[in-house]
Amino acid sequence: MKLETAPEPKYWHLKTVLSDALDTEFTVGEILPNERDLAARFGVARATLRQALEQLELEGRLQRRRGVGTTVAPPRVGVAVDPTRHTWPGAAGDDWQAVAASETDTVPAAVARLLETAPGEAVHVVRRNRVSAGQPVAAELLYVRSDAVSDGVDMVAADPAAGARAVLRALQALDLDGQDRTVELGSARAEDAKQLDRLPGSPVLVVTTRYVSQGRATAVAVSTYRADTCRLTFGEREPEPLLAG
Amino acid sequence: MKLETAPEPKYWHLKTVLSDALDTEFTVGEILPNERDLAARFGVARATLRQALEQLELEGRLQRRRGVGTTVAPPRVGVAVDPTRHTWPGAAGDDWQAVAASETDTVPAAVARLLETAPGEAVHVVRRNRVSAGQPVAAELLYVRSDAVSDGVDMVAADPAAGARAVLRALQALDLDGQDRTVELGSARAEDAKQLDRLPGSPVLVVTTRYVSQGRATAVAVSTYRADTCRLTFGEREPEPLLAG
Repeated sequence: MKLETAPEPKYWHLKTVLSDALDTEFTVGEILPNERDLAARFGVARATLRQALEQLELEGRLQRRRGVGTTVAPPRVGVAVDPTRHTWPGAAGDDWQAVAASETDTVPAAVARLLETAPGEAVHVVRRNRVSAGQPVAAELLYVRSDAVSDGVDMVAADPAAGARAVLRALQALDLDGQDRTVELGSARAEDAKQLDRLPGSPVLVVTTRYVSQGRATAVAVSTYRADTCRLTFGEREPEPLLAG
Repeated sequence: MKLETAPEPKYWHLKTVLSDALDTEFTVGEILPNERDLAARFGVARATLRQALEQLELEGRLQRRRGVGTTVAPPRVGVAVDPTRHTWPGAAGDDWQAVAASETDTVPAAVARLLETAPGEAVHVVRRNRVSAGQPVAAELLYVRSDAVSDGVDMVAADPAAGARAVLRALQALDLDGQDRTVELGSARAEDAKQLDRLPGSPVLVVTTRYVSQGRATAVAVSTYRADTCRLTFGEREPEPLLAG
């Protein structure tokens, strides 16, 4: 069909038409025809087609990979963000792998505000990764007040993962008063992008969690989830029913 | 400084440098120098500069508006998504304005799956808007099973807002067993974009909430939040402390 007479922006209408075509004519993983053929089929300019393809990529319907082309994406994977129990990072049943820990005195300004640390104050940083169904879904930097976990944490451990586990173990010994979270759009930092198998700057969902103990913020986790393949789930119930199909 | 020798992608490093400059040299609302001048100042190609500006826009640091240019964005606004009490949409203290209601038999496939409605089954749809600090932050379509609220809902009401309120009132009369949510990246539909004062296709955060009553899904809200200006907040505590500064 020709789209010249549509009252909405052309690329928007085209997006709807393409979305229907993805449902009915294509299967997951299938490579789309090239842009010239697609533009000709729908009677639109290449620029209009590209805008529509960008929308569908934002919505997780398409994947564009260099050297492969544009393929039909599988449905997004539901990733539980809000645990039913409120626990410290690293508690039993945690979905994250601790990779390394270090001490730093250069904390991002937003994190320093949440942790209420003084400028230049050293904190522990634990790097963690999350994998779901064999795919990397998230990378995290967990900032922990050094004074809260100073006992029993030897940061000069030869094994970086052992140092990370020591920080997490020290957290478990503290009372957790509560936690709160924000979710916002961001772009993948170079280091996270590598872990997530994405290009730096790709859209990500940034979940910032603050953990409060004895009336003050003790740890802040900045977790970066792939926005193309993940759907974050929150709630009282198991995510499966919501994500069936 | 010249960026030629940076090990990271040039635009990524440039983004970091620009981000620091935004913190130290610019104020909120200030218009950035034009692309040619910025590219010259940082010794990069225009294409590299544009990539960095796109990242900063994704992160909510910059706003690009036609006819105005690129300005420094105010901090994102925290918008509470997870109410401390679990209540139906439209309960006392709700932040949404009901605009209109109608009955439809064309429900998006994803919503029909959550509501467990049969193909072609009619449901009520309530359109709602959310405004925070005078700015539109979200637009919503709330789908309600017709059989759950049939009593006392007259959909031929002359006043569309009155019809919407009638559906919401009918919900309040039901027991709410629980609710769950997903958050994912999306692109603004034309109708929502208009309410949000954005172009169709702009990145948005899509929050899908399922409300369960008497063991079955009774309502599904698809809420579209501006991704450029909003940070969604979840948690036990009031959002203010997390968002201070």
